[in-house]
Amino acid sequence: MSIKIREAKKEDMNQVLNLIKELAVFEKEPNAVVITSEDLINDGFGDKSLFSCFVAEVDNRIVGMCLGYPRYSTWKGPTMHLEDLIVTKSQRGKGVGYALFSHFIKFSNKKGVRRIEWAVLDWNIDAINFYKSNGATVSREWQIAQMNELAIKNFINKK
Amino acid sequence: MSIKIREAKKEDMNQVLNLIKELAVFEKEPNAVVITSEDLINDGFGDKSLFSCFVAEVDNRIVGMCLGYPRYSTWKGPTMHLEDLIVTKSQRGKGVGYALFSHFIKFSNKKGVRRIEWAVLDWNIDAINFYKSNGATVSREWQIAQMNELAIKNFINKK
Repeated sequence: MSIKIREAKKEDMNQVLNLIKELAVFEKEPNAVVITSEDLINDGFGDKSLFSCFVAEVDNRIVGMCLGYPRYSTWKGPTMHLEDLIVTKSQRGKGVGYALFSHFIKFSNKKGVRRIEWAVLDWNIDAINFYKSNGATVSREWQIAQMNELAIKNFINKK
Repeated sequence: MSIKIREAKKEDMNQVLNLIKELAVFEKEPNAVVITSEDLINDGFGDKSLFSCFVAEVDNRIVGMCLGYPRYSTWKGPTMHLEDLIVTKSQRGKGVGYALFSHFIKFSNKKGVRRIEWAVLDWNIDAINFYKSNGATVSREWQIAQMNELAIKNFINKK
């Protein structure tokens, strides 16, 4: 079995969106995905693209993807963030995730960043062990705060 | 006392860096700050700026800052990230932090994002309560994984 990693094209965004939805189900938030493949095409390609996306192919079929973008640390300067690393369920355990992860680390390293960062759910022990075995630290110290659309609206509109 | 929030200028970056270092001491990582005010000037201004920064002035003196940048959610689309919100110790408890936070939320809302996100240390109870009281959710479920320069180098160089 050979795994090919390549830059994603606009035409892949339907399949990429299917992988995103598969991950949302796995992460127990099946209804959280509100973006469309058109959004991904508009946001990810062209001069002002908001992310970089790579797909993994096995037998010319897309079986996984990773997606990331630049961030900024006021301690370290430019960094990279790995937003998603997804391998479709039937193709796990074959090295596809490692190939995608490795590609993203090398891609980020070429940009000269001092840090690569991502988030992982605390119950996803397989993922945590995979990341640790590849040299990442996984910290419980930081908590993630979020305001969604409603919270933003309520904050703006309050007296 | 009047608090003025304004966009940061290049000339402010020395004072902004002092605030960043003050926060690093508070967060128990006094040696973690490797960037310089020149880095902040190069990275934060011009056509390809990597962040937006606002400062808070009291009596024409900078006493706080907030700094953030765009991110991308594969569930929600474009989002904003609040990297730092800092008020110098002697000026806390006077509403400076709220004024900065409020400015950043309004700034982000104008961009039409569906989410604003940031990280907070789990022992920083005052900050967590402040964020919750303003409508944010603070989750323990996500852990932050990082590879620093050495981890990236080791990963790239391993056989």
